[in-house]
Amino acid sequence: MDVDSPAARWEQRTEIPLFVASLVFTAAYATRVLAVNLSSGWRGLCLASMLALWLVFAVDYLVRWRLGGQRFLRFVTTHLLHTLVVVLPLLRPLRIVPLYDVVQRRQGDPRLSLYARVIAYASLSTLLLGFSGALAAYQQERGAPGATMRTFGDAVWWAASTLSTVGYGDVTPVTTLGRVIATGMMACGLGLLGAVTGSFSSWLMQTFSREGDREGPPGR
Amino acid sequence: MDVDSPAARWEQRTEIPLFVASLVFTAAYATRVLAVNLSSGWRGLCLASMLALWLVFAVDYLVRWRLGGQRFLRFVTTHLLHTLVVVLPLLRPLRIVPLYDVVQRRQGDPRLSLYARVIAYASLSTLLLGFSGALAAYQQERGAPGATMRTFGDAVWWAASTLSTVGYGDVTPVTTLGRVIATGMMACGLGLLGAVTGSFSSWLMQTFSREGDREGPPGR
Amino acid sequence: MDVDSPAARWEQRTEIPLFVASLVFTAAYATRVLAVNLSSGWRGLCLASMLALWLVFAVDYLVRWRLGGQRFLRFVTTHLLHTLVVVLPLLRPLRIVPLYDVVQRRQGDPRLSLYARVIAYASLSTLLLGFSGALAAYQQERGAPGATMRTFGDAVWWAASTLSTVGYGDVTPVTTLGRVIATGMMACGLGLLGAVTGSFSSWLMQTFSREGDREGPPGR
Amino acid sequence: MDVDSPAARWEQRTEIPLFVASLVFTAAYATRVLAVNLSSGWRGLCLASMLALWLVFAVDYLVRWRLGGQRFLRFVTTHLLHTLVVVLPLLRPLRIVPLYDVVQRRQGDPRLSLYARVIAYASLSTLLLGFSGALAAYQQERGAPGATMRTFGDAVWWAASTLSTVGYGDVTPVTTLGRVIATGMMACGLGLLGAVTGSFSSWLMQTFSREGDREGPPGR
Repeated sequence: MDVDSPAARWEQRTEIPLFVASLVFTAAYATRVLAVNLSSGWRGLCLASMLALWLVFAVDYLVRWRLGGQRFLRFVTTHLLHTLVVVLPLLRPLRIVPLYDVVQRRQGDPRLSLYARVIAYASLSTLLLGFSGALAAYQQERGAPGATMRTFGDAVWWAASTLSTVGYGDVTPVTTLGRVIATGMMACGLGLLGAVTGSFSSWLMQTFSREGDREGPPGR
Repeated sequence: MDVDSPAARWEQRTEIPLFVASLVFTAAYATRVLAVNLSSGWRGLCLASMLALWLVFAVDYLVRWRLGGQRFLRFVTTHLLHTLVVVLPLLRPLRIVPLYDVVQRRQGDPRLSLYARVIAYASLSTLLLGFSGALAAYQQERGAPGATMRTFGDAVWWAASTLSTVGYGDVTPVTTLGRVIATGMMACGLGLLGAVTGSFSSWLMQTFSREGDREGPPGR
Repeated sequence: MDVDSPAARWEQRTEIPLFVASLVFTAAYATRVLAVNLSSGWRGLCLASMLALWLVFAVDYLVRWRLGGQRFLRFVTTHLLHTLVVVLPLLRPLRIVPLYDVVQRRQGDPRLSLYARVIAYASLSTLLLGFSGALAAYQQERGAPGATMRTFGDAVWWAASTLSTVGYGDVTPVTTLGRVIATGMMACGLGLLGAVTGSFSSWLMQTFSREGDREGPPGR
Repeated sequence: MDVDSPAARWEQRTEIPLFVASLVFTAAYATRVLAVNLSSGWRGLCLASMLALWLVFAVDYLVRWRLGGQRFLRFVTTHLLHTLVVVLPLLRPLRIVPLYDVVQRRQGDPRLSLYARVIAYASLSTLLLGFSGALAAYQQERGAPGATMRTFGDAVWWAASTLSTVGYGDVTPVTTLGRVIATGMMACGLGLLGAVTGSFSSWLMQTFSREGDREGPPGR
C-alpha cells in the first residue's frame, strides 16, 4: 500500500477517532451489562450509542473498501481482522496496532523490537478479548438456572482460565449462547496465546544466543 | 508426481464425486445418531448407504495404489491421511485440500497465501473432527448410566473444550468406547490446533515485520 | 562419535537385547500391578527379575561411560535421556530410536523423513509414558480413600487427559506419590507433545508449500 | 553493553550477593507462610528482613539505571525482567541466568548448548514460579470458606496443574487475591512453558537431523 494513497490518508485520519469510538462502545456495553440498577433511560442511551457507533464502523469499512479499489470479496479476505471487528464491534480495540503505528509515525519515537511488539499486541488483545468475553458470557449466564458464573468476578476468572487453556471447570457456562461465546474465545484466544508464547520463546532463544556471542570474545 | 500420470488423472476425476460421497456418509451417520424417532426402514437405508460408500472409498484407495505403482506398505506410509480416511470414513472430508486444488486448477483463481491455506485447512478439519467426534461420542454416551453428556449440544460443547485442550470437565465421557473416541480426538486435535496456532503466530510475525519495513523508508 | 569406536560397537551389540530387557521389565511391573490374584511366588519372581534387569541397565550405563572416556558429570549431562532411563527403568523403551537406527543400518532400508521420525518417536514415547505412568499412578491410588481412579481403565483415561493437557479432572490422583508421578508426566509429556505438535505443524507447512510449487508450473 | 563499563562491573560484583539475598527473601516468606506456630517475634523478624531486602533490591535497580545512562522509561522497557523482580521480589531468583554467566566466566567452564541453557533456565524459573505462587496462593486461600486448597501440598499440586495448563480443577482458588495470583501464574507460566516446549522440540529436531547426517556416510 502506498503511504500517500487515499486509503492510507483515510486510515491516518480516522484511526484515532475510531479507536476512541471503540472504547466508548465497549464502555457502553459494559455499563448495560454491569450497572443493573440503571434507569431504563440511561440503558436506552447506551443501546442507542452502541447502534450509532456500529453504523460509524460500518461506514468506515465501506469507505476503506471503495478507496482500496479491490473487489469486495477480495477486500474481505485480505482484511479479515477488519471484517471481524465490524461484525463484532466489541473486538474493535484489537485494532490498537495500526493506531500505535499512526501515533508513532507522528512522533518519530524509536520503535519497539519485533518480538516486543508482537507480545505487546497479543497481550493487549488477549486482555481485551477476555474482558469482552467475560462481559458477554456474564450477560448470558446471569440468572440462568444452575449457573456457576454468579458474579462478574466469576466471569473474569472463567475467561482467564479459558484463554490460558487451563480450564479448571469450577466456573463454566451452561446456556447455549454462553457456550457459543466460550467456543469463540477458545478459538481466538488460542491463536493470540500461541503468538505470545511463540514470540516469547523466540525472544528468549535470541537473547540467549546473543548473550553467548557477547560473552564469547572476552573468554578467549 | 507427474501431472499427466494415470494416478493424477484419476485423482482429478474422482476427487469431487468422492468428496460429495463423504459428505453424504457424514449426513447418513448424523441421521442415524440424531434422528431417534426414525422408522427402522430409514435407519436401515442409512446404514446400507454408509456401507456402500465405504466400499467405494476402499475401491478408490486400491485403484490409487495400483496406479501409483508403489509397494503396498510404502503406499500406506506415504499416504497416511488417505489410509486414515479409508479406515475412518467420518474423517474423509479432511481431504478438502486436494479438492480445493482440483477446483482451483480448473478455474485459475489466485491462490491464497501459504499461511491462509494452512489456517483454513486446519480450521475446517478441526470443525469437522469436532462434529464427527461429537456425533460418535454422543452415540456411545447417550443413555449410559451416570453420563454427563445428555444432549447433542452437550456433546458439541465437550468436543470444543476437548479440541482446544481447555477440558473443563463439566461434560466428560464415561463409557469405554466414548473415552477411546475422546483420546483419538485429543491426539488428532492437538496436531491440527498446533498447525493453526503455529501458522497464525508465523503470519502475525510476518505481518509485523513487513509493516516494519513498509513504515521504515518514510521515516528516514 | 566414531562409528567404529568401542562405544559405538558396544551400542550396536547391546541395543537390541537391552530393549527386549526393558520390555520384560515393563511387563513384569505391569504383572505385579495388574494381576492382583497372583500367588506371592510369582510376585516375588516379578520383583526379582525387575531388580536383576535394573542391575543390567546400570552395568550397561557404567560400561558406556568408561568406553566414552568422558568425566562422569560430563557424561551425565550429555546423555540425559540415558541417565533418566537408568534411574527410572520404566522409561527405558524410550530408547527405541537408537534401536531403530541399529536395526535399520543392518537392513539398509530407506529412512523415513525427519518429520515422520520425530512424530513416530514422540508418539511412541508418549504412548509408553502414558502406559507406565498409568500403571505407576494406579498402583499408588488403588485403595486410597476418596480415590477417583478405581480401575486401570480410569488410570489410562486419566493419563490420556493429562498428557494432552486437557485435564478434565473427573479422575485425579489424591495420594502424594500419585501426584508426584502426575507432575512428572506433565513435565515429560509436555515436551514430547510439543515435539509432535511442532513437527506436524512444520510438516503441514512444508507439504502445503511443496504442493504450491508443484501446482505452479503447469498453471503457467 | 561493554564488558568493562561501570554497569557491567556493578553487575559482576553484585549478582551473587543479590541472588543469595533473593533466596533469603523467599525463605523468609516461606517461613512466614508455612511455620504457623512461629512466635510473633520471629514472624516480625521475617517481615523486617523481607522489607530490608526489598530496599536492597530497589537500590540495586536505581544504581543500575544511573550507571546505564538511559532515560528511566527506556531503562524500564529494556529491562522488563529486572523491573518485574523489583516489584515482585519473590520472582527475583529468576535472575539465575546472569548469575550463571558470572560464575561461569570466572571459572571458564565449557558452556552448555543454547537449547540446554534455555531449557535449564525455563525449567528452573518454572519450578521457582510454582513454589512462590503456591506459597502466595496458599497464604490467601488458607482458611477461606469453601476453599479446596487446604494444605501446602494441595497448593503445590494446584500450581503444577496450573503451570502445565492441565487444570484438573480438583483444587482451585476461591478468594479474589488467590485468583489474581493464579492468573499471573497462568500468564508467566505459559511463556516459560512455551520456551521449554519450543526448545525441547527444536533440540529433538536438531538431534534427529544430526543423527541422520552421521548415519548417512557409512551407508553409502
